[in-house]
Order: sequence, then C-alpha cells, then structure tokens
Amino acid sequence: MNANDFADRLTATATGTEALLERLLDGAALPGETARPGRLLDAMRHGALGGGKRLRPFLVVESAALFGVARAGALLAGCGLELLHCYSLVHDDLPAMDNDDLRRGHPTVHKKFDDATAILAGDALLTLAFEVMAREEVHADANVRIALVRELARASGIGGMAGGQMLDLAAEGRFDQKRTLAENEIVTLQAMKTGALIRFACDAGAILGKADAPARQSIARYGAAIGQAFQIADDLLDVEGDSATLGKATAKDAAAGKATLVSIHGAAGARAMLAQLIAEADTALAPFGDRADILRATARFTADRRS
Amino acid sequence: MNANDFADRLTATATGTEALLERLLDGAALPGETARPGRLLDAMRHGALGGGKRLRPFLVVESAALFGVARAGALLAGCGLELLHCYSLVHDDLPAMDNDDLRRGHPTVHKKFDDATAILAGDALLTLAFEVMAREEVHADANVRIALVRELARASGIGGMAGGQMLDLAAEGRFDQKRTLAENEIVTLQAMKTGALIRFACDAGAILGKADAPARQSIARYGAAIGQAFQIADDLLDVEGDSATLGKATAKDAAAGKATLVSIHGAAGARAMLAQLIAEADTALAPFGDRADILRATARFTADRRS
Repeated sequence: MNANDFADRLTATATGTEALLERLLDGAALPGETARPGRLLDAMRHGALGGGKRLRPFLVVESAALFGVARAGALLAGCGLELLHCYSLVHDDLPAMDNDDLRRGHPTVHKKFDDATAILAGDALLTLAFEVMAREEVHADANVRIALVRELARASGIGGMAGGQMLDLAAEGRFDQKRTLAENEIVTLQAMKTGALIRFACDAGAILGKADAPARQSIARYGAAIGQAFQIADDLLDVEGDSATLGKATAKDAAAGKATLVSIHGAAGARAMLAQLIAEADTALAPFGDRADILRATARFTADRRS
Repeated sequence: MNANDFADRLTATATGTEALLERLLDGAALPGETARPGRLLDAMRHGALGGGKRLRPFLVVESAALFGVARAGALLAGCGLELLHCYSLVHDDLPAMDNDDLRRGHPTVHKKFDDATAILAGDALLTLAFEVMAREEVHADANVRIALVRELARASGIGGMAGGQMLDLAAEGRFDQKRTLAENEIVTLQAMKTGALIRFACDAGAILGKADAPARQSIARYGAAIGQAFQIADDLLDVEGDSATLGKATAKDAAAGKATLVSIHGAAGARAMLAQLIAEADTALAPFGDRADILRATARFTADRRS
C-alpha cells in the first residue's frame, strides 16, 4: 500500500466520521429522550465536530474490514468510540485538570462556553457513546453490541483511560509531593491513559467480526504496539513539534518537569523504540498476510505522524 | 401492605445494594482493565457508598418482581443505575455546578479530595454503570441487557438527566439574564433532571421481565407519576425540611430565587398535586391487581418522605 492510498482511506473515514457525528449530534430528541437543550448540544458539537484525524474510528473500520465486516456498522461503532474520546478531551482540558485553552486550533469547550457546560457536555458525550454502541445498526447480534459496551467501559473507566488520567495528575505532584516516575510506571500510565482506547479500537473490529481467539489475540498484540507507539510519537511531538501545526501547546511535558520515554531515552532512543514497536505490530499481523497491509501502514503512520 | 413491611423491604434492598456496590468498587482489576488507582477508587467509593435510601435500585427490584424476575439480576441492574445516579451527585456538587459542601451529612467528593479527582470519579462511576449493565449476571439474554444500556443512556444523557441539569443552571441565570420559568418549563426540567432516572428504574423492571407493550406502558405511566411526585416532595423538603435530618443544605431554591411547583402553588397546592399523582400511580397499576401493592406503597412513600 502506498502512502497516497493510505492517506486517501484515512481521509475517507475521517469524512464519514464527521458526517455521522453531525447526524448523531443533531437537535432531534430520540425516543426515550425529552428534549435536547440547545446550549448543551452546541457545547457537545464544539467538543466533537470539526476535528482530528479520527484515528480511532479508522482503526475500528480497518480492523473490522480484516474480518469481512461491512463498513456502515463499523463506522457507527467507531463514532461511538470517537464520542467517548472527545468527552475525555473536553474534561481533560478543564481548568481543574490540564487547564488548556486551545484544542485543534480552537478555544476549548470551557473557554468557549464555561466550566459547568463543559463538564455536562463531557458527561453527555460519554453517555451518548454508549447509546450509540447499543444501536442495532452497529451489528444485528446483541451479543456483539453488549461485548462492545463492556470492553469500551473497561477500556475507558477506572482501570483504563480515567484511571490513567488520575495517575498522570498524581505524577505532576497534584496530591502529594511530586516524584519522577520510573519507566515501568510511565508505561503503565500511558497504557491506561491513551493506550486503552487504541487497543479497544482494534479489538472492536475483531469483536464485530466475531474473530476466533487466536485472531483476536493477534489484533490485541497489534493494538498494544500501536497504542504505545502513538504515545511515544505524541511525546516526541511535544518536544519537537510546532504548536501552530498541532493546534495545541507544545513543550508542556518539559515545562511540567514530566518524565516520558522521550525524556528518559532521548529522541533517538525513542525513535528506536518506535521502530521496534512497528516491527512488533508487523509480526502480530503476520497471520493475516497482505490483507493486513492497511493496518501495517497505520502502524507506520501512527509512529511517524507530524501532527 | 403495612408500613413496617414496606420499610423492611426498602431496608433489605438498601442493604443488598450497599453490599453489592462494595464489591463492584473493590480494588481488583477486571479482565480488560489494567489497574485501579487507589485515589480514584477511594473517591468513587466516597461518592457511592454509605448512603441514601437507594430508591432507584428498589424500584428496579420491585418492578422486576412484578414480572417474576429473580432478585439477583435485578439488584445488579439496580446497582448499575445507582452508580450512574451517584456520578450525577458528584458532578452536580462541584463548585462549577451547584457548589455543595455537604451530601448525606458528609463532605462532598471535591471537598474531601479535590475538583479534578471529583470530575474523574464521576466519569468513572458513569462508565462503570454501563459496564455493570452489560454483565451477563444482569440477564442471560443480551437483547435485554442492550435494551437496558440504550434506555439508561437516553434517560441520563442530553435528552434526560444531563440536559435537565443544563436547563436548571440556565434557569438560575448562569448564562443569560435570569428569568422565572413558566410552570410547563419547570415540569419539563424536572421530568429530565430527576424524573428520567426514576422512570428508567421502573422501566428497567419491565425490560428485565420482557413485559408486553401494555404492561410496559402501565409501568411507564406509574414511573412518570412517581418521578414527578419525588421532585415535588424534594421541593417541599427544601422549604420545610431540616438540614440536619436531610444531611444537606435546605432553603436553597428560595435563596436562589428559583421557581418550583411549590413556589407557584404553595405548600398546600403542592400537597394536593402529590395526592393526585399518587392516585395516578394507583390507576396505572390497576392491571396488576394486589401484586403491585408494594409499588403503590412506594408511591406513597415517595410523596410523603421526610428525608
């Protein structure tokens, strides 16, 4: 697969995600809903629309495609996951958390609205994520949908993303004296804070495709490798990236005195780790042959990205 | 059903809920979780354990019992709902929202911990609610569990509870000029903010029992009546209650100049509305005969409660 083909497919899924999120966040109340208050809807839309590479939906769609799953259901499941990812950005940006004013080049939700509205918008995006995952259009088999709900909840709750954010705040010395994390603690924190949702994105495709245990295991290894690669690339961008290109602040880790794998191993060491993780991702995909080329390209993209 | 029998059953479910929540909030990571950070777990436990009448789990259990559903699965579903209710209390108490220091006679989560931890604890409780609802122990049929997930999400998201909190903040003049709500606006706000979860609690029993459409409709009417009664009783307690007995501040509506059905119709008028709602609840339950006596007693309890 050449770079242009990959870029085209990534763009196509980002476009499809945006269109579907637009529909999921329209003003029409669903059965079982009373009404959708305009201010809250506007804040949710501000937090979810108009942005990003939509890497997580792309992983769901391409992992599902490996198992012959039709695109429409996988894209809807990917949108459920993206809503959850967006909630985490809205809450992490709050003054009480990471206190960020800028996200994807725009004011964060609490800057554009206010803290209370941002808290509620995050809550409602998280809730909508599960509502979407439960929809029949995701998959005809309720067992598949309930597995998605369960695994998404575990990936994003206390034992996953939310727990990882807690560890991150603790590492900044917010609750006790600040201390420098050991490498294994950094790996655990990152596996929870950012890795868990990326692993879930890959696993979701396998769940949708009712993959057998060995295949699901292979996808899990792939997801773990690219999840780690994603975070190392992020830490490299924080050191080397340009805030105008990224649309968010950079050099935040160094300013906060925060240890990362980049600060421990240096940029060259981190690049060597990325190469190793790409190799691991390739190995994990071996059983699928060249049908998995798009996922191999995704691993390289995740490691090499410049924004 | 006499008052003592009712009180005994309410207490038994509260005790069962507490024990089950204690297990759901232990430190052991589930499959798919990496680890459960101690500080976040402590904050979740502070927000969910040791309190309350556990009215919502009780409604799930007793509504389910009407349809012959075994207690264990219904109690677990009730605990999922209670976790979600507790997340809403943790977030609503935040300084950016209602800014409450006291809940059930104890410091609120952000007072005992800090704002960031309280935000994350709420997020993780909300997420865990859906994880619990997806568990096989709730019901053997995945279609039943996915219906619970979907309806819970709709009852608690932008079109339900979270949207109702948004309307409540707006009514306080937080975003524009304050204005006094008309009666129909108050009814909508309350149907969303507190009514939706109580309606869901009743509906959950009917879903678990695979009730036919007319029976589910009857339960929905019952749930709507007691949901409204619950809020009117709450507004009466805010006027007439004692903060020591309630374990939270009172006279907050008057202090905030907030219109309620009590401020519009007076205490006597509100009591007449409560009597009417109890009668509506009774009528809705007519098809079930005396098997629904416990739900009738619950309606009276909801309207007459002193704490």
